[in-house]
Amino acid sequence: MAEAKYDVLGIGNAIFDVLVKTDEKFLSDHGMTKGGMSLIDEARAASIYRDMGPATEMSGGSAANTIVGIAGFGARAAYVGKVKDDQIGRLYTHDIRAAGVAFDTSPASDGPATGCSYILVTDDGERTMNTYLGAAQELTADDIDADEVAGAKIVYLEGYLWDPKSAKEAFVKAATIAHGAGRQVALTLSDAFCVDRYRDEFLELMRKGTVDLVFANEAELHALYQTSDFDTALRQLRKDTKLGVVTRSEKGCIVASDDGVVAVPASAIDRLVDTTGAGDLFAAGFLVGLVRNAGYENAGRLGALAASEVIQHIGARPLASLKELAKKNGLPV
Amino acid sequence: MAEAKYDVLGIGNAIFDVLVKTDEKFLSDHGMTKGGMSLIDEARAASIYRDMGPATEMSGGSAANTIVGIAGFGARAAYVGKVKDDQIGRLYTHDIRAAGVAFDTSPASDGPATGCSYILVTDDGERTMNTYLGAAQELTADDIDADEVAGAKIVYLEGYLWDPKSAKEAFVKAATIAHGAGRQVALTLSDAFCVDRYRDEFLELMRKGTVDLVFANEAELHALYQTSDFDTALRQLRKDTKLGVVTRSEKGCIVASDDGVVAVPASAIDRLVDTTGAGDLFAAGFLVGLVRNAGYENAGRLGALAASEVIQHIGARPLASLKELAKKNGLPV
Repeated sequence: MAEAKYDVLGIGNAIFDVLVKTDEKFLSDHGMTKGGMSLIDEARAASIYRDMGPATEMSGGSAANTIVGIAGFGARAAYVGKVKDDQIGRLYTHDIRAAGVAFDTSPASDGPATGCSYILVTDDGERTMNTYLGAAQELTADDIDADEVAGAKIVYLEGYLWDPKSAKEAFVKAATIAHGAGRQVALTLSDAFCVDRYRDEFLELMRKGTVDLVFANEAELHALYQTSDFDTALRQLRKDTKLGVVTRSEKGCIVASDDGVVAVPASAIDRLVDTTGAGDLFAAGFLVGLVRNAGYENAGRLGALAASEVIQHIGARPLASLKELAKKNGLPV
Repeated sequence: MAEAKYDVLGIGNAIFDVLVKTDEKFLSDHGMTKGGMSLIDEARAASIYRDMGPATEMSGGSAANTIVGIAGFGARAAYVGKVKDDQIGRLYTHDIRAAGVAFDTSPASDGPATGCSYILVTDDGERTMNTYLGAAQELTADDIDADEVAGAKIVYLEGYLWDPKSAKEAFVKAATIAHGAGRQVALTLSDAFCVDRYRDEFLELMRKGTVDLVFANEAELHALYQTSDFDTALRQLRKDTKLGVVTRSEKGCIVASDDGVVAVPASAIDRLVDTTGAGDLFAAGFLVGLVRNAGYENAGRLGALAASEVIQHIGARPLASLKELAKKNGLPV
């Protein structure tokens, strides 16, 4: 196998986050399902934005957040995602490159604006996302560079890629190239509603071995197997994938592999501010542990640490150096 | 005097903030003077942005931050400032209106982009600002609506308005209308370097009575009177203006009026994160106290409280309800 150029290459919907603190009433008045991600069209985006309070903006996108986290640990990271060549697309491009991520997907020169997500954060720290895909709709298999994908130890894909019309072809192309080059393919199930939309396809990706590693939170796992019993779902997961990592918020995570099941506790926090990016940053830490051969327990701890950083402030991108944080906590990076 | 429609109307440079955590080395490598505001042209903006880390974005602009704070206390507020009709200008317009501020300045349809400030925040919480004025350059006296200005109890103006080429005419027009309608005019000196640029003009505004109330921090006060002795500077300030309010960071503030000098302590904080907006939010609280006839001491306390909120998170706009915060602290709003 050729020497890897990247530790992890991520592919996802490039989304600019517009974050606002709000109350439960806003969610119910607007018919939003708390904690989920809803896809919205331009008209609904305009209507939500009109009613929303003053916002804070930050680059986001699930896989992009993970990849930025991976770079923050000092690992080599690349990202593929589609923005438009507009003001927000340029902010987006700056942020991901400034984080040390290789990002060379050509921006769309016409069509819809750079995608954005209106993220409503309630007092309990829970986030409810309303995503207008915009230019992320324009990602196609042509955006996948075979050499770049083959040069990454792990290709990380988000389930959300099933939403835009052509991105799943990009997904499958990347997975095929990666396996052809002897690399690993990881998938995050993204969101319980996303799992509801694409359950059979996600199960097929797992059972056919298109993906080697699956990240899910509890809600996604339950949605995948349509059961409210955690142990039943976990047993199914172990049958369907070689390596399954289930995050359980303050209860930590479960790593299920051929070697057995390892439970890793969550990291302590001072104050929960905004859960946006928690799962994304967990995946970042876990993947860094994996490429560093740190063992599942340390990988889980790195994931928990990164998640704990991002939920203590507004926004889905880390504000502190994850590398320093890991060192301070005696974890290998 | 007609019934006031607004408690405070603010006029300033409408600036979108691009905030990033950085270290002292970045400042020195880029020849920046820590703690100040430097005006930059497009080329320097591009060069700083290229080198900057991943950012968080939020609407800003000194007087705009103050006006948003005033609305946050539940007072009636209006703002005049120039953005372009571009993506960032639309974010800006949304944010200030969503904060409950009347904002009707027509955006520029061509010319430079909406202004922005690259704000570097070091570990000690100090912010160093690099401002590209952009569309804020296009503010003119035509943007001042006589009825709107005459309908505000206090017109609040920022010293930064001396930087764009035509804004000082807007400033003087607004002050003249306000006084003609029997209203009060307040000025913030904005920045010590700004005072260096326009010292004689600011002193003339004060001595001629174009402004009735002056906000300054210690550095600005010392720059204004070119002395390092605080008491000397304060004596001069008392001669030159009817009401002078000097903020002294963790030492609180001094209110100097015909009634004498009142010292008000700063509000306690858990953790200093980012001083961006501290002076702006202090002014917000103080002005709310003034229009509510709460007395100088309570006005100072409201100012200190608002400042303490904004320095405990990234960005110059409050994230919590200032009205609730005031109630919780037993202050009148």
